[in-house]
Amino acid sequence: MGFLSWMIPQEKHFFDMIEKQSKNVVVGVDALVDMLEHYTDLDQKREKIKRIENEGDRMVHDIFSELNKTFITPIDREDISSLTSSLDDILDYVEGVAERLVLYKIKKPPIYMLEFARTLQRATMNVNHGISLLRNFKEAAHIRNFCKEVNTLENEGDMLLRKATAELFETKDAVEIIKVKELYDNMESAIDRCEDVADVIGDILVKYT
Amino acid sequence: MGFLSWMIPQEKHFFDMIEKQSKNVVVGVDALVDMLEHYTDLDQKREKIKRIENEGDRMVHDIFSELNKTFITPIDREDISSLTSSLDDILDYVEGVAERLVLYKIKKPPIYMLEFARTLQRATMNVNHGISLLRNFKEAAHIRNFCKEVNTLENEGDMLLRKATAELFETKDAVEIIKVKELYDNMESAIDRCEDVADVIGDILVKYT
Amino acid sequence: MGFLSWMIPQEKHFFDMIEKQSKNVVVGVDALVDMLEHYTDLDQKREKIKRIENEGDRMVHDIFSELNKTFITPIDREDISSLTSSLDDILDYVEGVAERLVLYKIKKPPIYMLEFARTLQRATMNVNHGISLLRNFKEAAHIRNFCKEVNTLENEGDMLLRKATAELFETKDAVEIIKVKELYDNMESAIDRCEDVADVIGDILVKYT
Repeated sequence: MGFLSWMIPQEKHFFDMIEKQSKNVVVGVDALVDMLEHYTDLDQKREKIKRIENEGDRMVHDIFSELNKTFITPIDREDISSLTSSLDDILDYVEGVAERLVLYKIKKPPIYMLEFARTLQRATMNVNHGISLLRNFKEAAHIRNFCKEVNTLENEGDMLLRKATAELFETKDAVEIIKVKELYDNMESAIDRCEDVADVIGDILVKYT
Repeated sequence: MGFLSWMIPQEKHFFDMIEKQSKNVVVGVDALVDMLEHYTDLDQKREKIKRIENEGDRMVHDIFSELNKTFITPIDREDISSLTSSLDDILDYVEGVAERLVLYKIKKPPIYMLEFARTLQRATMNVNHGISLLRNFKEAAHIRNFCKEVNTLENEGDMLLRKATAELFETKDAVEIIKVKELYDNMESAIDRCEDVADVIGDILVKYT
Repeated sequence: MGFLSWMIPQEKHFFDMIEKQSKNVVVGVDALVDMLEHYTDLDQKREKIKRIENEGDRMVHDIFSELNKTFITPIDREDISSLTSSLDDILDYVEGVAERLVLYKIKKPPIYMLEFARTLQRATMNVNHGISLLRNFKEAAHIRNFCKEVNTLENEGDMLLRKATAELFETKDAVEIIKVKELYDNMESAIDRCEDVADVIGDILVKYT
């Protein structure tokens, strides 16, 4: 077995691990969209999202362990670490939202929550498409399209937050504002992290193509 | 003097520095527990905690300077840096809580504050036990027990936050909610950081034992 | 062309890039002071600050790309990265404040906003002086004076936040508290980041002089 064939499995390994993590993020976001669309059995749905997030934590842990043990990585060590950390943040925000829906006894999802969640869903799907093609730099043009779509969705999330926050403050109900503001801010932060992932992917393409 | 005997003091040095930092965290948490148990002379007690936190900042600075100057470290450079940063965060949260108690003119500690502080106290004591044994990897089983205890306490902190937040929102007093929510959130974040420290210790044990 | 003459342009390059970024931060802070002093045409003024912040993001991106491509840097890689990240944070906070002034429909700048902004302005000016001298370590004494001034201003910011927050809570108007507290906290965090920059500069001086 030559030097290169010994290296290649390693290489595939990292792409596999990040892709697995990215798919898990999509699963978590889908669970949140479902929770908001069918707003019943909140405790179980929150528990489900918690389990997905725990699963994600284990994946992050495995990727960092692997990084520690591996001398040569297929893409820059810092890029793997940034991708993994931002993907992890997305799921943390999603779990934080699910927990607050229960904790704050939110009777009905605030008016813009589903729109936020669907924007996040589209952003994570595009992120996931980009990541799944990342092992094949010939797909650079394709990958860039997914990244561009994430940027567009991040802008939409930004405008949505502005509209939603302005309307929220019109209600003058301070307790409601405290609760709902945290939900909206967390949704927008989750979408922001998708853009961070897209930015790292963009940097990787610049370096390797 | 041989190469190895020249290196060994270096090694001990890092463990000494982290242990000193960890003890300082315990001192800071003890001061917060005392402030909550004997809720008088708040300005002086807040000042005392501020001094302990400043002392901690100097220790962090020394550890990072030492890391910059040292080529070979007894445990991974990233692990030392994670331990130090998380220990520092604990003390920042503690100081933030002490400051807010004074700043927000809190007349009486909110109902769950002492329970939070005692949970944090037990967590930091366990963290400190684990760290003080860290130079002796033969103690791995012992160290793991301390880490496990920190995980249990972090779960308790998590449940405490849920209960405390739910009850807080029942009060419907928005100004009170703003103030007390920040106090509770900071306490829980401090306990979270103890778990981060325990996780890094766990990773170190995996690598070296 | 010798090895050294090949290296020197590289070296100047990084100092140029950080200096450019630091000047852009000053421009952004000046724009915020102007917005608060002449509190009209808020949308345009907010847009202007947003453009400056976008410009800053591109500079950060260029510096990190350059760091990735460069094997030998004039000062430690970590120090360049810390300087750049903290400078970037300042502008993020400034932009966040400008956005909230519009979003929260703030009719008149809260009482301490201008004082915060002027403290921040002096801090960024001192940071910028220090950074512009950084390529010339013979100026160490000079640079240290600018850093000391930043530390003083950070203390002033800290005291200002305490006074401002205490008075704010006296108003008992929860919605107002939510809005203005975020503005004040962001201003103080921006000033804090100036101190982070000054601390890194101090560390660089210790290493190289």
